[in-house]
Amino acid sequence: MIRFYWLLSFFVLVTASFAQTDDAATIQKIYNEALQNGQSYENLRFLTKEIGARLSGSPQAAAAVEWGRQVMDTLGLDRVYLQEVMVPHWVRGAREQGRILSQRSGAGQEVNLCALGNSIGTGPAGVVGEVVEVHGLEELDALGRAQLAGKIVFFNRPFDPALVNTFEAYGGAVDQRGGGASAAAQYGAVGVVVRSMTTRLDDVPHTGSLRYAADVPKIPAVAISTNDADRLSRQLTLEPDLKFYFETHCQMLDDVLSYNVIGEIKGTQFPNEVILVGGHLDSWDLGEGAHDDGAGCVQAMEVLRILKSLGIKPKHTIRAVLFMNEENGLRGGRKYAEVAQANREKHLVAIESDRGGFTPRGFETNASPAQLKRMQGWVTLLAPYGLHEMIAGGGGADIGPLEAQGTVLMEYLPDPQRYFDYHHTNIDTFEAVNRRELELGAAAMASLVYLLDRHGLGKAK
Amino acid sequence: MIRFYWLLSFFVLVTASFAQTDDAATIQKIYNEALQNGQSYENLRFLTKEIGARLSGSPQAAAAVEWGRQVMDTLGLDRVYLQEVMVPHWVRGAREQGRILSQRSGAGQEVNLCALGNSIGTGPAGVVGEVVEVHGLEELDALGRAQLAGKIVFFNRPFDPALVNTFEAYGGAVDQRGGGASAAAQYGAVGVVVRSMTTRLDDVPHTGSLRYAADVPKIPAVAISTNDADRLSRQLTLEPDLKFYFETHCQMLDDVLSYNVIGEIKGTQFPNEVILVGGHLDSWDLGEGAHDDGAGCVQAMEVLRILKSLGIKPKHTIRAVLFMNEENGLRGGRKYAEVAQANREKHLVAIESDRGGFTPRGFETNASPAQLKRMQGWVTLLAPYGLHEMIAGGGGADIGPLEAQGTVLMEYLPDPQRYFDYHHTNIDTFEAVNRRELELGAAAMASLVYLLDRHGLGKAK
Repeated sequence: MIRFYWLLSFFVLVTASFAQTDDAATIQKIYNEALQNGQSYENLRFLTKEIGARLSGSPQAAAAVEWGRQVMDTLGLDRVYLQEVMVPHWVRGAREQGRILSQRSGAGQEVNLCALGNSIGTGPAGVVGEVVEVHGLEELDALGRAQLAGKIVFFNRPFDPALVNTFEAYGGAVDQRGGGASAAAQYGAVGVVVRSMTTRLDDVPHTGSLRYAADVPKIPAVAISTNDADRLSRQLTLEPDLKFYFETHCQMLDDVLSYNVIGEIKGTQFPNEVILVGGHLDSWDLGEGAHDDGAGCVQAMEVLRILKSLGIKPKHTIRAVLFMNEENGLRGGRKYAEVAQANREKHLVAIESDRGGFTPRGFETNASPAQLKRMQGWVTLLAPYGLHEMIAGGGGADIGPLEAQGTVLMEYLPDPQRYFDYHHTNIDTFEAVNRRELELGAAAMASLVYLLDRHGLGKAK
Repeated sequence: MIRFYWLLSFFVLVTASFAQTDDAATIQKIYNEALQNGQSYENLRFLTKEIGARLSGSPQAAAAVEWGRQVMDTLGLDRVYLQEVMVPHWVRGAREQGRILSQRSGAGQEVNLCALGNSIGTGPAGVVGEVVEVHGLEELDALGRAQLAGKIVFFNRPFDPALVNTFEAYGGAVDQRGGGASAAAQYGAVGVVVRSMTTRLDDVPHTGSLRYAADVPKIPAVAISTNDADRLSRQLTLEPDLKFYFETHCQMLDDVLSYNVIGEIKGTQFPNEVILVGGHLDSWDLGEGAHDDGAGCVQAMEVLRILKSLGIKPKHTIRAVLFMNEENGLRGGRKYAEVAQANREKHLVAIESDRGGFTPRGFETNASPAQLKRMQGWVTLLAPYGLHEMIAGGGGADIGPLEAQGTVLMEYLPDPQRYFDYHHTNIDTFEAVNRRELELGAAAMASLVYLLDRHGLGKAK
């Protein structure tokens, strides 16, 4: 009997070891395919250079939907389809401008700015006012209506450069952009100027969405470049009563019909259990949306292409989703989860790539400790490809609504240092993406999908 | 007695745990200093933008020496000095050019090329000949004088894109650049054209040094861009007898007096034992030598600045060395080791940063397995900063000559994906360096120096 157990243990060990070797060989093939025959870079070129910026509701967003469908149609998938979703349609309009009006120098000094997404415009009259500089929303309560009514509030709390993870620095500053306008409006402010969301010091303004609170007047809001924010702050110490003028012509139009783009390989054993990989197809209207999130879209499609090319027949259904409207509404992500719920589709795992096409570092997930531990066991297989991190964390925005259905969320983590150099700007272009870094990201996601499909997630508890 | 041992173990454990906490706190301070008050980026700006390219023997190299000395003079070090070294003085000369001479199309098609470093020039007459394309030096023996005499040999073996580490791909291709000219000349070839050393497909030629064998005629050699290499190869299949023309005006002048730039903080306990951090001050004459190796120089100096700023008084002498002439002679590295030997200086460890200012991955070292194991124990301290790799490998070129004196060599490993996009080209400029990635590299090196100084290397066996 003892001998029997011994033999059994031996058998289990050998099998485990074979599985590991087998996995290593498959992952090597996945990387070879991505690096030798990769299509993600050429797909990104087309999306960014031939279509370009594609804000929800724009003609370019419609073109991107058709492009995504056509690219997936070439992959020999089992199903490619569009999923209807109504999206907001915000437009930037005519030339935006802003000036520091110094009574000392006499002349207005032009600054680099852009309207925040979803903001109302000032119209041709613009808005002008004295400037109150603050470093956080909580300062407004102390200032109150007495000091804020009729003023322009300037939110100037910078990213904390000491945070190694730039996404933490973003998280520590972005409430100014998202909630600053309504917070200032409740004390009678007439406009808001926000320091751009980046650690970099340069002349590039960063847009991004704001959310108006329901019961407060809507006031126009713009982001100015970090160099201009520093300049404005310096000048305010010399001349506290200087004025700032800005003019924007943005407006929110009626909702527009758009689509999530979906393609899938049916699972051989569990066709009703889905492993999802995705990115978002919409982008801001500045630049080309290359890192945010053209990269995630072409990587998600590349995962399917790689599996097909290698003849891997997954046990579970593997689905690539290009979500619409992540940037200013999240309608695509919400609609997707709603339909999944209605159709009783079971999503085991959803993996999002929405942190740019940079060199791979790993993944984060909201999986249970036991599941995370199992995935951490895969790091020995992934470390040779630079994937050392398998950590607890959230998932991406688009897949978030699936969490309520018990889906394990995962987010691809490329290196975060350069992301906020480009995020929501006119320099987020194809040229800012390195081919190999993009391809390695696609291979990383394909490898994770392969391991999840083959070995499963394990117990949720 | 048992109780005594128990207490002792407890004491050791507690001490070790305090040490770890203490180390973690110091490393956090090092990173805060690098990211909040870093000087490396501004120093790099000056070196690249105000001085620029600085090939050994050039006036710019002399200016860079004086700049390095002056920057170190501001750091409050115990000693800053120059070390004389005679360096080669190769100059590129007037405009270089090359053309594919197609008898079909009638016209010459211009290609993007540059002379390889140390090459002789063609002079105004240029060199012209039919082209023999090969993919490796070994193919020349089979072709022999019969097929190579009077010809231009075109070395066109590309980087292997499937290698995740681009330095391995470089190692697999660079013999064509380094040894191709003499290998071809021994069979009577009149010139050499080499595919640029990069995975990227673009129009940028990459220079780099060649070595002429002693007993073979010297023939001129150039690198052409990867796009042009693909074009030339395609046209050769259509028109095998097409000719190629190129003209270069480079030449090797007499040796010039130059300097290694050295600064140090004296050790409090072991002033005669040195921990060295370094990069090389010279660069190729194209571009600005930002990643190669302005980054390594400013990082080495930043290590000393950070230690001084934090009031860390190292036990061993910490020395920053800006080596001269890594690119086309290694005279600085050789001279440094020679002087160290003559002065009986003991170098415990030498750490080089010469793989660009990219996001940190870790270090490699030729240390003994026991020493490596000790250093791998530090990875838990370093991983929060993205430093997961502590692996066996070589050291950098400049520190190599110290190996014979028993010095442990280490090389800083930033992420390798983008390095060969810029290496030895006119696009290796300041703009290609990300501030945070550069600063994180300096902090990585400072943290390693701190740990080495505090805990030592352990046994060499």
